Amino acid sequence: MDSKQFREAAVSSIDEIVKYYDTIEERRVASTVEPGYLRKLLPEEAPQDGEPWADIQKDIEAKILPGITHWQSPNFAAWFPSSSSYPAMLGEMYSTAFTGAAFNWICSPAVTELETVVLDWLARAFGLPACYLSTGPTNGGGVIHGTASEATATVIVAARDKYLRAVTAGIPGAEDDEEAREDAMAARRGRLVALGSAAAHSATKKGAQIAGVRYRSVPVYAEDGYKMTGASLRRTVAELRARGLEPFFLTATFGTTDTCAVDDLESIADVLAELQAEAEAASGSRGGDGPPGEIWVHVDAAYAGAALICPEHRGQLAAEAALSRFHSFNTNLHKWLLVNFDCSLLYVRDRRPLIDALSVTLPILRNYHTDSGLVTDYRDWQIPFGRRFRSLKVWFVLRTYGVRGLQAHVRKRVAFAEVFAGLLRGRPDLFDIVTGPRFALTVFRLRGGGGEGATATLEEQNDLTKKLYEAVLAEGKIFLSSTVVGGVYAIRHNPATPFVEEHHVRKHFEIFVEAAEKVLSSQ
Amino acid sequence: MDSKQFREAAVSSIDEIVKYYDTIEERRVASTVEPGYLRKLLPEEAPQDGEPWADIQKDIEAKILPGITHWQSPNFAAWFPSSSSYPAMLGEMYSTAFTGAAFNWICSPAVTELETVVLDWLARAFGLPACYLSTGPTNGGGVIHGTASEATATVIVAARDKYLRAVTAGIPGAEDDEEAREDAMAARRGRLVALGSAAAHSATKKGAQIAGVRYRSVPVYAEDGYKMTGASLRRTVAELRARGLEPFFLTATFGTTDTCAVDDLESIADVLAELQAEAEAASGSRGGDGPPGEIWVHVDAAYAGAALICPEHRGQLAAEAALSRFHSFNTNLHKWLLVNFDCSLLYVRDRRPLIDALSVTLPILRNYHTDSGLVTDYRDWQIPFGRRFRSLKVWFVLRTYGVRGLQAHVRKRVAFAEVFAGLLRGRPDLFDIVTGPRFALTVFRLRGGGGEGATATLEEQNDLTKKLYEAVLAEGKIFLSSTVVGGVYAIRHNPATPFVEEHHVRKHFEIFVEAAEKVLSSQ
Repeated sequence: MDSKQFREAAVSSIDEIVKYYDTIEERRVASTVEPGYLRKLLPEEAPQDGEPWADIQKDIEAKILPGITHWQSPNFAAWFPSSSSYPAMLGEMYSTAFTGAAFNWICSPAVTELETVVLDWLARAFGLPACYLSTGPTNGGGVIHGTASEATATVIVAARDKYLRAVTAGIPGAEDDEEAREDAMAARRGRLVALGSAAAHSATKKGAQIAGVRYRSVPVYAEDGYKMTGASLRRTVAELRARGLEPFFLTATFGTTDTCAVDDLESIADVLAELQAEAEAASGSRGGDGPPGEIWVHVDAAYAGAALICPEHRGQLAAEAALSRFHSFNTNLHKWLLVNFDCSLLYVRDRRPLIDALSVTLPILRNYHTDSGLVTDYRDWQIPFGRRFRSLKVWFVLRTYGVRGLQAHVRKRVAFAEVFAGLLRGRPDLFDIVTGPRFALTVFRLRGGGGEGATATLEEQNDLTKKLYEAVLAEGKIFLSSTVVGGVYAIRHNPATPFVEEHHVRKHFEIFVEAAEKVLSSQ
Repeated sequence: MDSKQFREAAVSSIDEIVKYYDTIEERRVASTVEPGYLRKLLPEEAPQDGEPWADIQKDIEAKILPGITHWQSPNFAAWFPSSSSYPAMLGEMYSTAFTGAAFNWICSPAVTELETVVLDWLARAFGLPACYLSTGPTNGGGVIHGTASEATATVIVAARDKYLRAVTAGIPGAEDDEEAREDAMAARRGRLVALGSAAAHSATKKGAQIAGVRYRSVPVYAEDGYKMTGASLRRTVAELRARGLEPFFLTATFGTTDTCAVDDLESIADVLAELQAEAEAASGSRGGDGPPGEIWVHVDAAYAGAALICPEHRGQLAAEAALSRFHSFNTNLHKWLLVNFDCSLLYVRDRRPLIDALSVTLPILRNYHTDSGLVTDYRDWQIPFGRRFRSLKVWFVLRTYGVRGLQAHVRKRVAFAEVFAGLLRGRPDLFDIVTGPRFALTVFRLRGGGGEGATATLEEQNDLTKKLYEAVLAEGKIFLSSTVVGGVYAIRHNPATPFVEEHHVRKHFEIFVEAAEKVLSSQ
């Protein structure tokens, strides 16, 4: 394919993509293919000879699109959105054209430098404390990861090694003897525990598995709205320490996966400060290990962090005050802020623990700029070696919409969820809101069980809601997720995709009413 | 930006990209900006209001391109290539349009299924043993990762947990008591060592750091051409075991970073089998720990693996026989096989250790298809949670070029390196080949030091070569990397980018001759 053929193919692809977006609502939102559908449509082996683009392009509609679930459809309200925008697509086009592994500054200085600039822009736009700026007082800054899971695994590794260095610092011989230092760290590593609330995303557990440390969860309760509190954290930490285990890391969540609960960041920060002071005071009377190290707190705001772009969501949550007492913060622009997947922002208060844990420099990578300390080598802030030019799409999105455009985008979807929740509340005979709406997420269930006055068991209630969920999914007009919170089977409705409008949300509600009435009348 | 504006912006972007590729040779290959150049050109804060695309697009040439190093330039011969092709760019366009987090099958079945199909196609095209096919006899298969570093870290984690499960299997109480099992594994984890040769990529050391295990390197020698041998591995393993440490993982390299050496895969496989048999025989007379577990061998073929698409590179290396005795294999299509970054293939002989180490399933992710076991959830084969639709660009590249087209691409570049090395050999007064050409990589140095008959010290030789390297880089007509192998400072020349032709390689040689003569005459 030469550049003339490419131009033709690319323009034709753009036309197809525009047509796809313009008519996306007409497609059934979730794919209905059976497992293994595609293998049957494709040859057993790669072609020996090349084919013209026209033949390949035809297969996109014929073979690929039946297997696509349309995340940009206004009828997609499942999980959290993975939003797309035209300027982000242009960013990916240029990023692909400038392709390179970009593992250090000289690989393409613009890749590193634009990332630093747009992450500082966003830290300010989110109202994050100054410690998360690359130019801030604590040697911190931001980096783009692919997913929140990568970001979480990375900070767990950094926190683990920071903790182990701190608690083994005074061990005799370990300073100069690499193997003695390793022995001391290995012995202590066996006791480490990473924590997250019971409502935290599985990323923390997975990150702990990757880092080779234990994982325990901090209980959350329905009466707290499923948010983690300082009091619950205190009990968990005390219990673990009493058994000789050492909590070294905690994920606090700003918008949990199931219900968008926000952990009580302030009481968590207070409790950790108290625990540290108590442990240090007590360490005089204990054995030779010294006090436990500081617990690294990572704030997972993968989805709801986007809302921080609106000042009204910051003040309400005292985010800034608590965040300045923590160590790292993560939010995904690819969920709610119109940057195509993948684009997960990780901010750290201090970059050194990342670099200490992850830096490995080969002679072939030595260069004047890195050696001089003037440039940032983001490969030492992450697990992968090479890097894509992801800041380009962020820059295009920020410039195309402006901060005000992104605020309007978030506010509109928060309002849609209010409309949806209002409609649910208007039919108390059919629906029960379990939580929310919070950050455009409403979690609800079917109210039911034998007519007025009768009380269904939890199990019967759950069965009914599950029937409703399955009926709506089978009908295929909208696509959503279900979950189980506090033993309650519930449906999540999150109308935060880019092309959704109020009339779609009203239609979603009608679909639920119709299906609910059918489910209840068939009882 | 609406779809009409997008169409216009996208077509104009395509035109710019075509112009960029058509004239890439005219640009100075490596960026010459100073650190911090971009911050000076951009505002302090994100814009409050949106801007038209035309204003944004102008800034690409004005502000971004000065900070781009042109990896697709035929004058780029640094590191390994990060190649680009038009069909891969089309793949990225569609992938971005179908954006979604794709963390499980139903997220978009085509994302999972096309990946399985094209990875099977490639396993066959590379002549990999059947154990790496998704339909093979050992429950193996392939997955697309971002970079070889991610792939390596992932298999280290899987190997670590597989090893620990095996060696702690018989510990009393550990079967039913989760905490006793954790204690047993933590105690044993402290002894684990991941191995790579001294010439292996830093990814193994970094992966060991991530997994929280020790790392040691196996010596390589100039007389073996810097390849790791079974004999050297045997000494390292014996030494570590004698000190109570347990090697559990080894990276064997198929094309090392510095010199493209291929480790002696067959003798490595033989030695590991012998060591295992010896350890099992000896374990009767030892303490209660039982014999050490099996060492997982990962083959890192990040760059040179591409050459396996040509049968002549397989037979020569007995690749298939050795590979079938190992556990995992990795090669990056984004280096040499015309798929834009990122696209790193990881194949495993058995998928279960990956899933055992990395799977964490939340209620919100439960679905009929996963529960039925009929589909592959690739998130359990990797560190990130969500996934891009990367198989699309692989499919487009395979169909556009066909296997024969990719073979021709590789062979042409192998031939270019032969031309370059031949030219170097033609000037024995100026140049000395240190290694190669191997897989289109030639490593050479300046021959020099006081005229005919005089002998320069190694240090003087190194100084001269460094001067040559720096002079060529300062001139800016080509871009390359230097390295140090066995104490020798050397220059790496790897003309494997997509638009390189023989006349470029001849020109590169002339540049070296001119610069070498200047360096030597200024002595």
